[in-house]
Amino acid sequence: MTHSVQLLGISNAIVDVLAHVDTAFLDRIGAPPGSMTLIDEEQARSIYSQMGPATEMSGGSVANTVAGFANLGGSAAYIGKVRNDQLGDIFNHDMQSLGVDIRLPPATDGAPTARSHILITPDGQRTMQTYLGACTELALADITDSTVGNPKAILLEGYVWDIADGPALAKKAAGIARSNGTAVALSLSDSFCVERHRDAFNDFVSNDADIILADEDEINALLRTSDFDAALDALDNYDQLFAITRSEKGSAIVHGGERIMHAATPVEKILDSTGAGDAYAAGFLYGWVNDRSLSACAQYGTYCATMVIQQLGARIEKGLLDSFA
Amino acid sequence: MTHSVQLLGISNAIVDVLAHVDTAFLDRIGAPPGSMTLIDEEQARSIYSQMGPATEMSGGSVANTVAGFANLGGSAAYIGKVRNDQLGDIFNHDMQSLGVDIRLPPATDGAPTARSHILITPDGQRTMQTYLGACTELALADITDSTVGNPKAILLEGYVWDIADGPALAKKAAGIARSNGTAVALSLSDSFCVERHRDAFNDFVSNDADIILADEDEINALLRTSDFDAALDALDNYDQLFAITRSEKGSAIVHGGERIMHAATPVEKILDSTGAGDAYAAGFLYGWVNDRSLSACAQYGTYCATMVIQQLGARIEKGLLDSFA
Repeated sequence: MTHSVQLLGISNAIVDVLAHVDTAFLDRIGAPPGSMTLIDEEQARSIYSQMGPATEMSGGSVANTVAGFANLGGSAAYIGKVRNDQLGDIFNHDMQSLGVDIRLPPATDGAPTARSHILITPDGQRTMQTYLGACTELALADITDSTVGNPKAILLEGYVWDIADGPALAKKAAGIARSNGTAVALSLSDSFCVERHRDAFNDFVSNDADIILADEDEINALLRTSDFDAALDALDNYDQLFAITRSEKGSAIVHGGERIMHAATPVEKILDSTGAGDAYAAGFLYGWVNDRSLSACAQYGTYCATMVIQQLGARIEKGLLDSFA
Repeated sequence: MTHSVQLLGISNAIVDVLAHVDTAFLDRIGAPPGSMTLIDEEQARSIYSQMGPATEMSGGSVANTVAGFANLGGSAAYIGKVRNDQLGDIFNHDMQSLGVDIRLPPATDGAPTARSHILITPDGQRTMQTYLGACTELALADITDSTVGNPKAILLEGYVWDIADGPALAKKAAGIARSNGTAVALSLSDSFCVERHRDAFNDFVSNDADIILADEDEINALLRTSDFDAALDALDNYDQLFAITRSEKGSAIVHGGERIMHAATPVEKILDSTGAGDAYAAGFLYGWVNDRSLSACAQYGTYCATMVIQQLGARIEKGLLDSFA
């Protein structure tokens, strides 16, 4: 089977609005440190008006992974919904400039392009307040044989289940993938998102997904396990490939009873942990679609994540894996 | 005389679109390295479509200085024209979040908010392709006793002379300033800008300005001198205060025959020279409005410039001068 592109991402298309804040700011707006909270347009206006000067750049978890994947040299496509406004132009430009094939036109009416207020505390942790805007209008009808095509893999994010048509369109995309010999990957997004959609995710993991990308908290939330060893034991019962990131404890790849533990690379200072998991997924999937060993995939993922936490912003720079060539 | 604020900036309100490029990119679009070229909407679209992924943040030369000045703890106001679009919202938010009093409402029709495509080459140099958009609609009628008020100083930039009403509104602002006991500062923007408007600048410097901020190339362009020593000699004939930056050679303050030479602070790596002069101006003017010695003003300016060239982006962070307190 010839695949049109290597990776197709389906996710919430978001522009990040990044600012440094102190922890008192999080208290003031009632945001748990490290969380991602969905907010409405009114709340978005309120938080933005309280924030200091910000930097804008394209974001979105799986969108970051797709951009990173393209930057590594992979061929990629993307399905997500932006509005035909200035932030939507920015989002699509940044994708297209990397060669990513944007499969949907911008919406000509409805809510503005989504933005996520990313509040970076001095410890480098990110707390996100996300206004989904146009993302909520991504619809079942947007997922078709023609928009999905036959990539080598599709990658969905858990946040897609937060939008009205999300569960249905994820299932539809997985069905199209199955009929095309396309692998289905799912990034679990965050542990609160897993709590919101645990049953749906467990169903999707068991029946639709081939690859699951998650961090330790997310996998524990999914499996209702309380520590990582218990999660690992539970995963022995799955056929799917799991890649689980554990911050400074490295990552674990679990597949059909096989376990690969990959150490983290120590860094002097974490500037901004935004996008560490997304970058890991980019490197890991780049290895996977290029038929590298799981150990090499973990090495690529770790390298990308290590680089991204030492810069401001979630997207990795071009040619990052050149030193592995 | 009680001044309502310490500093009022009048300038082109611009959102920066920053991207790393190689020098071949500059050749391809025919941009001289280090230059600022004015482009129209069509050219802006073309350059943007050729650029890689970018980061957006509020910019504009004197706007950067005003933001930096506010970040240092100064009270500031701003006159510039944005459109009521998403980039205009970003520009005004970033100013207002620093406490800067925005004196004009966004335009409700006409061209979109200005953007400057800032192309950063591996040597850290910036090359700017600027679409002025809404800036061109800043009008003589926007400069009134009420919008100018009676700040301790106003700061104009040379780029204002690039817009239709620019020369007239600069003169009008200077007239209002004079009647209020407000000092008039002028930043010369860039040497190409000085070439475009040399006669007007020489007139303004001699008849309206009290403080002139410039780099070595700009002062040579203004005075038609071919080296810095010749420029220094020529400046002995002026009563105005000149603060002249010279990159790694430091800065020179010239005032009524007095000369203060201030050394640069060596840095390991220049990440992005964007905004070095703007940051110097912020520190220098912060010292000046607070009645510090010219030597202390130079020290503040140097410190701000040194910090800004070691980060991506033109605006300095909050509390930068705290270590001088």
